Amino acid sequence: MVTTQTRPAAAQQRTRMAVIDCDIHPAPKSPKALHPYLSERWRKHRDTIGDRGFAGAYYPRANPNAARTDSWPPSGLPPGSDLDFMRYQLLDAWNMDFGVLQPLLGGGAQLNHEYAAALSSAINEWQIAEWLEPEPRLRSGLVVAYEAPDLAVAEIERRGDHPGFVQVMLGIRTSEPMGRRKYWPMYEAAVAHDLPIGIHFGSQGGHPITGAGWPSMYVEDHAGMSTAFQAQVISLICEGAFEQFPSLKIVLIEGGFAWVPPLAWRLDSAWRKLRDEVPHLQRRPSEYLAEHFWFTTQPMEEPPRASEFVELLDQASWLQDRLMFSTDYPHWDFDAPDQALPKTRLPAGFPEKLMAENARALYKLPTRAPE
Amino acid sequence: MVTTQTRPAAAQQRTRMAVIDCDIHPAPKSPKALHPYLSERWRKHRDTIGDRGFAGAYYPRANPNAARTDSWPPSGLPPGSDLDFMRYQLLDAWNMDFGVLQPLLGGGAQLNHEYAAALSSAINEWQIAEWLEPEPRLRSGLVVAYEAPDLAVAEIERRGDHPGFVQVMLGIRTSEPMGRRKYWPMYEAAVAHDLPIGIHFGSQGGHPITGAGWPSMYVEDHAGMSTAFQAQVISLICEGAFEQFPSLKIVLIEGGFAWVPPLAWRLDSAWRKLRDEVPHLQRRPSEYLAEHFWFTTQPMEEPPRASEFVELLDQASWLQDRLMFSTDYPHWDFDAPDQALPKTRLPAGFPEKLMAENARALYKLPTRAPE
Repeated sequence: MVTTQTRPAAAQQRTRMAVIDCDIHPAPKSPKALHPYLSERWRKHRDTIGDRGFAGAYYPRANPNAARTDSWPPSGLPPGSDLDFMRYQLLDAWNMDFGVLQPLLGGGAQLNHEYAAALSSAINEWQIAEWLEPEPRLRSGLVVAYEAPDLAVAEIERRGDHPGFVQVMLGIRTSEPMGRRKYWPMYEAAVAHDLPIGIHFGSQGGHPITGAGWPSMYVEDHAGMSTAFQAQVISLICEGAFEQFPSLKIVLIEGGFAWVPPLAWRLDSAWRKLRDEVPHLQRRPSEYLAEHFWFTTQPMEEPPRASEFVELLDQASWLQDRLMFSTDYPHWDFDAPDQALPKTRLPAGFPEKLMAENARALYKLPTRAPE
Repeated sequence: MVTTQTRPAAAQQRTRMAVIDCDIHPAPKSPKALHPYLSERWRKHRDTIGDRGFAGAYYPRANPNAARTDSWPPSGLPPGSDLDFMRYQLLDAWNMDFGVLQPLLGGGAQLNHEYAAALSSAINEWQIAEWLEPEPRLRSGLVVAYEAPDLAVAEIERRGDHPGFVQVMLGIRTSEPMGRRKYWPMYEAAVAHDLPIGIHFGSQGGHPITGAGWPSMYVEDHAGMSTAFQAQVISLICEGAFEQFPSLKIVLIEGGFAWVPPLAWRLDSAWRKLRDEVPHLQRRPSEYLAEHFWFTTQPMEEPPRASEFVELLDQASWLQDRLMFSTDYPHWDFDAPDQALPKTRLPAGFPEKLMAENARALYKLPTRAPE
């Protein structure tokens, strides 16, 4: 359910259930906001050369940071950049236990890998100093130069044990399918630090999103991004990443989840016919899917009949323990906590798990003290 | 349901229902089998330069033409190349009303577009002379140089009215998403000749199949090909192909269909938020999907519980009129007619529609005279 309406704080309905928001996008206050966290060499690089990536854009330009029209703080700062206003409009307004940040600042996918590593470190230090330390309800993803896994490993070693970071953060559009050996050292380091890998909608790896080239329109990227998620699930499973790293956990953020049962059917069917090609797989593909993947809810799946949502939960009942609520604040396609659940009879305990408890368990977040 | 077992003809169970097979792959008897249908200029080209396409392969090499181990004719010819043996093993064995050929001989996707057009014409003449005229139960797809739509239009004008051709044939992996204007002249010609566009698994357009590059394994292409189909559906709908050509019909061959309801939900949801970008769309994306698309069954969707197949038919009830049985003969992942339907209570009339009547209606095939 989507709302982009301005909701006066006084009128906002407190949800009775605990809420943990697994997809919040913090923004820098200005183009130079990361400078204090960069060395002189990379400050100069950022000022003179700047960011370079592959072509492609997934966000409409009508608003900076693809923001809700009501998300501009009274301070005049850009949407998502003002912690006080984020508290007012999101954390306090919905009485959230915790919120998990996903900074989308291009740190991981820079073509210049050394700059990617420096920018990732700067984003992480900026997160610690300006978000995680001032606000105990916030957690975040550790940004890493994931196309240069040796540099990603170094960042995980450097900051992976900071209590504010609850996962390692990647974009879904990588330069090679994510199951390939190139990325394994990064998974090994994440597992060693007990961190899931969180993979967010977007980014860019040099390849068009479809098997037939570049689509013309944003709406195609938006609706089609779930195919990129499906492809990464296939790759991670088929390449044997979960045999190599049995405790590896993957969080798919903003990629949907209604595609999970059909993909599981298809993967199992292909595996039954072609298992000689993947002798390293000890189990059916759907078993790895059920054991190793988590999903955030926004954009929520909205079948025309709410009963179809229940069928989906029945077809992959393990999803009840793996779906995690998210708003995508302050983005334009925000899902409000009181509108996220389908209006139908849901399995007992499932709403609580979706709204907070699945995330609390995965990210090892404490039960919030009574106020 | 898959069988690659040899079934002696005497033991083969006749299905009570009429059967029309919508995906049969004829093969040339030898590398020079197309020569009689090529001009001297292109015969020489084929002998000296040969086929050239983008990289990538989707079929295992264990058997030529990815064939069932029992599909080698006693004549010693390659699988799928002997019409008498195809009659014995497929058309007669299963008492089929009709079979629709899908020649996968690389005609459409050659990088040399003039050669693509010559090769396509040769394949079509070979089909008429060696398959369609000798066997009245066979129909086929008209092969065209679809990456050079002007040449494709010329071939549709040249041979589109031959009664043996019931659709224009494309591969799912094109060089641009299929909704783009480049391909519109071809759709215009197909509609003018009252021919659906049939789009088969495979081919190559120069792009990796995933948004993150080339997967390592065949099993990934096999399971992931449905993402290429999803992307083409998104493109055709969003670009407005069905507003431009209201009678355009698309047949998706060997791409699955369990992904249809989740894709419809996601497309409608994206469209509700972003319809300003696609003002040419007069209806919800799911309405175009329900009106313009047909699907063949092989490889059949095989949910772990047959009841989930019924849920799928309920979520997109129009699919009951759009699913068309296919075997993929002589390929290794053949679906036998007596094993294609899930073993569960299906909607009344649906088995007959799936096994023959949907294809009979779409392709305007006659009711078979009693024997």
